[in-house]
Amino acid sequence: MLSDGEIANAATLKPISEIASSMLGIDDASVLVPYGHDKAKIDLGYISTLADRPDGKLVLVTAISPTPAGEGKTTTTVGLTDALRRIGQRSCGALREPSMGPVFGMKGGAAGGGYAQVVPMTDINLHFTGDFAAIAAANNLLSALIDNHVHHGNALDIDVRSITWKRVVDLNDRALRHLVVGLGGTANGYPREDGFDIVVASELMAIFCLSESLSDLKRRVARIVVAHTRGTKQPVTAADLGAEGAIAVLLKNAMAPNLVQTLEHSPVFVHGGPFANIAHGCNSVIATRTALKLADIVVTEAGFGSDLGAEKFIDIKCRKSGMRPDAVVVVATVRALKFHGGVALPDLQKEDTDALRRGFVNIERHLNNLRNVFGLPAVVAINRFPTDTDAEIQLLRDLTQALGFQAFPATHFVDGGAGAEALAWGVLDELKEGAPNFRFAYPDESTVEEKATALATKLYGAAGITFAAKARKQLAQIAADGFAGLPVCVAKTQYSFSTDPKAIGAPSGHTIDVREVRLSAGAGFIVLVTGDIMTMPGLPKVPASAHIDVDDEGVVTGLS
Amino acid sequence: MLSDGEIANAATLKPISEIASSMLGIDDASVLVPYGHDKAKIDLGYISTLADRPDGKLVLVTAISPTPAGEGKTTTTVGLTDALRRIGQRSCGALREPSMGPVFGMKGGAAGGGYAQVVPMTDINLHFTGDFAAIAAANNLLSALIDNHVHHGNALDIDVRSITWKRVVDLNDRALRHLVVGLGGTANGYPREDGFDIVVASELMAIFCLSESLSDLKRRVARIVVAHTRGTKQPVTAADLGAEGAIAVLLKNAMAPNLVQTLEHSPVFVHGGPFANIAHGCNSVIATRTALKLADIVVTEAGFGSDLGAEKFIDIKCRKSGMRPDAVVVVATVRALKFHGGVALPDLQKEDTDALRRGFVNIERHLNNLRNVFGLPAVVAINRFPTDTDAEIQLLRDLTQALGFQAFPATHFVDGGAGAEALAWGVLDELKEGAPNFRFAYPDESTVEEKATALATKLYGAAGITFAAKARKQLAQIAADGFAGLPVCVAKTQYSFSTDPKAIGAPSGHTIDVREVRLSAGAGFIVLVTGDIMTMPGLPKVPASAHIDVDDEGVVTGLS
Repeated sequence: MLSDGEIANAATLKPISEIASSMLGIDDASVLVPYGHDKAKIDLGYISTLADRPDGKLVLVTAISPTPAGEGKTTTTVGLTDALRRIGQRSCGALREPSMGPVFGMKGGAAGGGYAQVVPMTDINLHFTGDFAAIAAANNLLSALIDNHVHHGNALDIDVRSITWKRVVDLNDRALRHLVVGLGGTANGYPREDGFDIVVASELMAIFCLSESLSDLKRRVARIVVAHTRGTKQPVTAADLGAEGAIAVLLKNAMAPNLVQTLEHSPVFVHGGPFANIAHGCNSVIATRTALKLADIVVTEAGFGSDLGAEKFIDIKCRKSGMRPDAVVVVATVRALKFHGGVALPDLQKEDTDALRRGFVNIERHLNNLRNVFGLPAVVAINRFPTDTDAEIQLLRDLTQALGFQAFPATHFVDGGAGAEALAWGVLDELKEGAPNFRFAYPDESTVEEKATALATKLYGAAGITFAAKARKQLAQIAADGFAGLPVCVAKTQYSFSTDPKAIGAPSGHTIDVREVRLSAGAGFIVLVTGDIMTMPGLPKVPASAHIDVDDEGVVTGLS
Repeated sequence: MLSDGEIANAATLKPISEIASSMLGIDDASVLVPYGHDKAKIDLGYISTLADRPDGKLVLVTAISPTPAGEGKTTTTVGLTDALRRIGQRSCGALREPSMGPVFGMKGGAAGGGYAQVVPMTDINLHFTGDFAAIAAANNLLSALIDNHVHHGNALDIDVRSITWKRVVDLNDRALRHLVVGLGGTANGYPREDGFDIVVASELMAIFCLSESLSDLKRRVARIVVAHTRGTKQPVTAADLGAEGAIAVLLKNAMAPNLVQTLEHSPVFVHGGPFANIAHGCNSVIATRTALKLADIVVTEAGFGSDLGAEKFIDIKCRKSGMRPDAVVVVATVRALKFHGGVALPDLQKEDTDALRRGFVNIERHLNNLRNVFGLPAVVAINRFPTDTDAEIQLLRDLTQALGFQAFPATHFVDGGAGAEALAWGVLDELKEGAPNFRFAYPDESTVEEKATALATKLYGAAGITFAAKARKQLAQIAADGFAGLPVCVAKTQYSFSTDPKAIGAPSGHTIDVREVRLSAGAGFIVLVTGDIMTMPGLPKVPASAHIDVDDEGVVTGLS
């Protein structure tokens, strides 16, 4: 089989105006803001005219706890979108934009794979329409304004030791994690400790993705807390620095959602891309909302397993936007479940139904959580690998069925949308059941501790939650600043229901230790940091960049 | 009169495809890569098909030594382009892209002014088509690869104290001038001193602007010297780090030149934007070359006064690309010449023919240099202000004429292209004279010292040039690395022919002291640093960003 890059390079794309017109009914090409011939933003003014249209159905694609074997969540989202079109549904995808950091590091691209990709793959994986560069510039302008304010007399009395607003780049660059800026003498400002995060880990990315409009964006940016004052420890906001107007100007074009197509010419919005640990891990509210107005079924995804991405999709994105998922797809692979059953990576291609049975506890908890905690119907997509045996597939289907869920093997990676038609019919069946009895994991009015305990005990199988002394102090400051009522965003390893990445399967009775609490006042949530959290990845010894090249005709190789 | 922003916001733009077709004869819209409806890149494949077409005439717009009074070089370039169209010529502009740093700092935008602007002004002044963001990402990927290489064992034996490749952002941020990266323990790499430059001051920006093609770009990037080894002090290049392929991929789309229009719908390429001190200060070779193939007269500009921008345009850009200017326009204002005559800024609106006569020495030297050193015909554009008196204008014309040059008052700022028609006729007259007796300021085979001496004595009126001990040591290393034959790029204050920014007028007999020498092996020149050189500006106490805002309909205010 060809590589992802070879498949994408060989694809024949339709003009994006044709996709918009024939697939989404956008007949007025002037509301498309083209970026090349195969990418376009949808004008925000046009989007505001859609407000009274009924919404389509919303399908959330999530997954089991990720393993090194890979699950294929984005690939399944793309394959399902294509399959729904094939069986006569007006579907549309809504994905996150890839970060460039992993593209040059280890992971490669994030635009699907095989015959289930969004294209133009190279552009989407690199600068795309400039959204992340705009977010980086806006983020770093705020940083420059903070240091500039201190340099020019510090009228706000900012305590430079308290500055929490970090600079960002869209690269993996460990040398920037921790640094001292402002060195070199009086002309360069006051030295202080600082650090860079990757763009997708920034609060501004989360704000970007949760904002309903340009004015909502400006309101959210205005209330970002960047530091505290000396002495009375009052919060210093972006508004205090007069930054929200300029930041909104820098993000004005980026806020319009990006439309592209799958290899099979289904429409997909690819817009925004916050991390699913430090932030909420799903594409922009504006893109999802636009897709819901223009299509009958919208397939979207949330980062990592359902304990992280889906929970935040529900408790943060849905809570704030009023959106509600109509059905959930949980992506699993036989390989990954065998890994959860204790099989080592090199042995995953061997049939092992016992290991599959053992590892099934992982998906069992994800499915039960979706049904029991959130009241959501779910189906399982078995992203089938060539080495999966029929016995393994049958066992996984049987185990799932015994739990009260349907599982559908899907081969969209090899076969495109045709390989996910059974899954598509299964999703359709769920959608016919009517609106689910949807609920959040916790009510707004709970305390931070109650919210965290609800997630730990109801979702993670933990015995309870603890807050380190530092975290308690930070919580007290957040309460004093008036933000104690926000929802929580747990930063936790994606590999386990616990905080130990090695505790695969479905660990129980553990404790979730919150070691740090960070306020994202603009995004509107409180980040609870458990374990190590990576907000700036590093590059491996041989980075992917070493094999990425372009020939004289502009054909890119090594990017997939 | 309306502000620049109000004029630009009120402008009615033509679709860029219509500009390309009716003004430049690009009838196949598929070779335009649109960015919105009013900006487009021209496909590099199409550009390569133009190679056999004859070139149009090339007019270089330069200026007297800049003063705080302002000269209006970009405004004149735009006005002249429009005026040439008005008198029946197929003209096209070729400008640099503005940096975002000054937009939020002090200077405001850089897309012309009044009724001589390129539009869409807001987009051009901000992210535009993403070129600078791409250059920043590519630059910073190389930085990350350097630190990553050292972190993972340093097989190349890089001396971290010798790393000269700095990171960049496209913002004014003094806190990033000098910093220590890699702090925080073994997981974050090795601590070392580092610094950020603004994107336009980077060698990669210069490389981008001098490259003839994607493959030329890759060759140039490969030979960037980022550091030296310990012990034997061998140069370490981007190729040693395997970076050139990934960097070329990141710059692939950016390399295609951007087409926009003036307020009067003349075509203008806006592409690339290196500083005129640390780099060579003119737009990209690809853009100028494309304009020359598509138009009969191309009006381009080079940064600062003719001692900096025009000299580098000739001795670097023309030397490397083979382009030759057919005529030069020197922009002057009565106000600025009175400033050179010793009048203080607040008094410039008062008539003062004596001061004008004294200050004339500045333009006199610029004109003589262009004629005597470079063999180029020049005309003077008097960018007229409302406070200029008729007596002053007449005196300036008389003095210029006595020197053997024509001077044309122009009012394009207020009147658009109609205000620069006399200037356009004057330029046409010069172009009818046939090819000038063009020559460089020094031959390729001179030594670095001879090249520097030629510029100092022939152009700057200096008695001679000195190299500090450190600079001599750096020159020796450059010679040892095999790059002693490159042309020089003098980093000098733009405000004076000397290295003292306060020495206005036409100082003579001074000495040019080179305190530092930097190799730009990829760009292909040797930077001679004289005096202080700013590669990362700071923000003022009240930055322009404080007054920049956007309303709910997306209309931007405060940006001009």
